[in-house]
Amino acid sequence: MSTAATGEPGAATSAPGDWRKLEPLHLPITLVAAKDAFHERGFHGTSIRDIASRAGVSLPTLYYHHDNKQGILVALLEAGMSSVLTRVHAAIADGDTPSEQLSNAIETIVLHMTADLQLASVGRELRYLDTDNPHRQHYVGMRTEMEDLLADVLERGIASGDFQIPGDAREVLRYLLGACQEITTWYRPDGPRTPEQVAVSYAATSLRAVGSRPAT
Amino acid sequence: MSTAATGEPGAATSAPGDWRKLEPLHLPITLVAAKDAFHERGFHGTSIRDIASRAGVSLPTLYYHHDNKQGILVALLEAGMSSVLTRVHAAIADGDTPSEQLSNAIETIVLHMTADLQLASVGRELRYLDTDNPHRQHYVGMRTEMEDLLADVLERGIASGDFQIPGDAREVLRYLLGACQEITTWYRPDGPRTPEQVAVSYAATSLRAVGSRPAT
Repeated sequence: MSTAATGEPGAATSAPGDWRKLEPLHLPITLVAAKDAFHERGFHGTSIRDIASRAGVSLPTLYYHHDNKQGILVALLEAGMSSVLTRVHAAIADGDTPSEQLSNAIETIVLHMTADLQLASVGRELRYLDTDNPHRQHYVGMRTEMEDLLADVLERGIASGDFQIPGDAREVLRYLLGACQEITTWYRPDGPRTPEQVAVSYAATSLRAVGSRPAT
Repeated sequence: MSTAATGEPGAATSAPGDWRKLEPLHLPITLVAAKDAFHERGFHGTSIRDIASRAGVSLPTLYYHHDNKQGILVALLEAGMSSVLTRVHAAIADGDTPSEQLSNAIETIVLHMTADLQLASVGRELRYLDTDNPHRQHYVGMRTEMEDLLADVLERGIASGDFQIPGDAREVLRYLLGACQEITTWYRPDGPRTPEQVAVSYAATSLRAVGSRPAT
């Protein structure tokens, strides 16, 4: 079920420190085609023929690797989520305190978003997947794993007094992740801000949002 | 060019204090149909025939009121933006300090979002509009007006010492608005949190994010 040209993306193999890298994820050609098509026309505005044609592969080839259009979308979603999950694991491992860990994690999420804005925005197409699609459930499981990692950082920060969050910490986490996700709607690589600048600024705003006291 | 059933939404007429109201905006039947269709299938996955059929009107009737599918999307976008803009004006006028004004503004934006999640999420379809579409430019102008209102609150708060934002205040504003916008992807009316609870919690998180010192 997998070749370099059309199969599933390879397992994530980031080394520690790689969480600050900026290169876009390497995707198989069919997933690049699907990403472009979904970005331009949305899930329902794209046919599986469009994807095959953009990728320069035959329909039978495409169907050999993916059950249907939903399967292609899931493969894209999983590629992006797998990459950001690996980054977030490494970013948290690289911090000594909850504040450092949260700051690193937000930085790497922003860098992931800005490295491939189209891939990052494909997550919005999730709502078009059937809720009983087992691949959707796998993707949602990965997303929950990432949220749990970050919720754990918040909870440890609250317990240690690093963070002052009077209300629901999970809701504050949704707030932070929402702010990061929306970067795909306004960030432009040819604009005045580099990805690193936005990453650092979003990390600082996130620390304030969780009531972290400045280290200075 | 306008009737109660199919025309443009009426001018916003909120009274002061209305910014805390929760009722969804009243939309003409064709825009309700378009909202549902765009939400289910996206802009490119929806035909103008789908919209006419859902609304129970003829195609000539639809074309009498709207030039094309882009015109219908713009009318929807403008209806939502006009409503939230009126709310934000009233919310800011109802606050005495930059902290109160920001808190009120975030509350009303969250209440706007949760009152009609589908309408609030239609903003994502903006990228499918031609950039030289004059209606798009009008909508973007309204959005800029709202951002300018909020940027003015931030700048006054920085000047008065109410807010501590070391970096780019406009980028922090994008952060806050992004967090609010993403509510459409996770909020469920049948979930454990009421819109008012989310609004208050998001306002408090936003105040922390701009470095506002608690009034207590």
